Amino acid sequence: MKLIFSPSSPFVRKVRIAAIELGLIDRIEFLPTTVAPGQPNDDYARITPLKKLPALILDNGDVILDSYVIAEYLDELAGGGKLIPASGPTRWQVKTDHSLLQGMLDSMLLCRYEKAVRPQGLQWQAWSDDHWNRAWQGMARFNGQPEKLSRPLDIVQIALVCVLGYADFRFADCGWRKAYPNLDAFHEKMLTRQSVKISLPPAA
Amino acid sequence: MKLIFSPSSPFVRKVRIAAIELGLIDRIEFLPTTVAPGQPNDDYARITPLKKLPALILDNGDVILDSYVIAEYLDELAGGGKLIPASGPTRWQVKTDHSLLQGMLDSMLLCRYEKAVRPQGLQWQAWSDDHWNRAWQGMARFNGQPEKLSRPLDIVQIALVCVLGYADFRFADCGWRKAYPNLDAFHEKMLTRQSVKISLPPAA
Repeated sequence: MKLIFSPSSPFVRKVRIAAIELGLIDRIEFLPTTVAPGQPNDDYARITPLKKLPALILDNGDVILDSYVIAEYLDELAGGGKLIPASGPTRWQVKTDHSLLQGMLDSMLLCRYEKAVRPQGLQWQAWSDDHWNRAWQGMARFNGQPEKLSRPLDIVQIALVCVLGYADFRFADCGWRKAYPNLDAFHEKMLTRQSVKISLPPAA
Repeated sequence: MKLIFSPSSPFVRKVRIAAIELGLIDRIEFLPTTVAPGQPNDDYARITPLKKLPALILDNGDVILDSYVIAEYLDELAGGGKLIPASGPTRWQVKTDHSLLQGMLDSMLLCRYEKAVRPQGLQWQAWSDDHWNRAWQGMARFNGQPEKLSRPLDIVQIALVCVLGYADFRFADCGWRKAYPNLDAFHEKMLTRQSVKISLPPAA
């Protein structure tokens, strides 16, 4: 299998951590590319018109899109029910929490694009504030649910560590550690995993 | 169950069509709300900090987020494997195609917000063009895969009809029917379903 990736993408990081934890990392070849709003990448657009990272290309040529579907595919490949419960109410709670974290990352990327990619003078503060607030309030929710931070590793914890790592990477002064001490302790604990440590984003 | 909804949301429409086709619509109570970028909605933000529509609230109070996870939940409630294949390679192709369509809708909403919600003078044309192009190239892909348009109803066809309906609703002059005749024929055929017809967006 081949994974089209960029080292700075939090969505790629989620898949990478999942692949390591599932024991599948050695079966994946990593192919780098670069995507940015408003910039063409015709080669990658042929794989996915969304130009979103990552994409997994199977050995038979089939393409699997998006980071959650890829994680779910890898989970099944590893036997199923490892990072996403196979059945029951917990399955839907985990999928819901993952969707929330995915939306938080989407909002954080929109903030990043608004402040660092969009030309000066075209920024709309209410847009950034709204999207940042979604991510921030989402962090508050997980900070208030310590049982989700301490249970055996799952896709929610992996996605949450990617949210926090992306906050450090692109919003270094946001102060999440002080505001959310439970998330701080969770993040420290997660960093003892090799998968989490070696996938930290590059220096900003 | 209760579904928090707005009649103009293409994500809500997808869930509504799925619920009708799965025979579950009578078990769902619809509760309206309004969300817009940069505008608070504190009641709904307590349900989901993302303020994205829809959200499904189960009778035990559990909340299920996002439109795809809700559709998957309803599919399982209806016996499983109805709109999303339960196993095999088709399962991953359907999930991938759905992710592509979901990203196309996200991009179309970003275009809409850029052109109609963001204050005049702050628009960035390269951003709109890039996101519109993602949706447009995505349409081209499905137009070129007629087998996906003619097989038994699934979540891909439902999401695709929501993309096309949203194009009519918010980008009425984009000319998708002329550019993509296979999608035009598909859309006409889908409109013979009551679920698709009664869920058309309101007049723009």
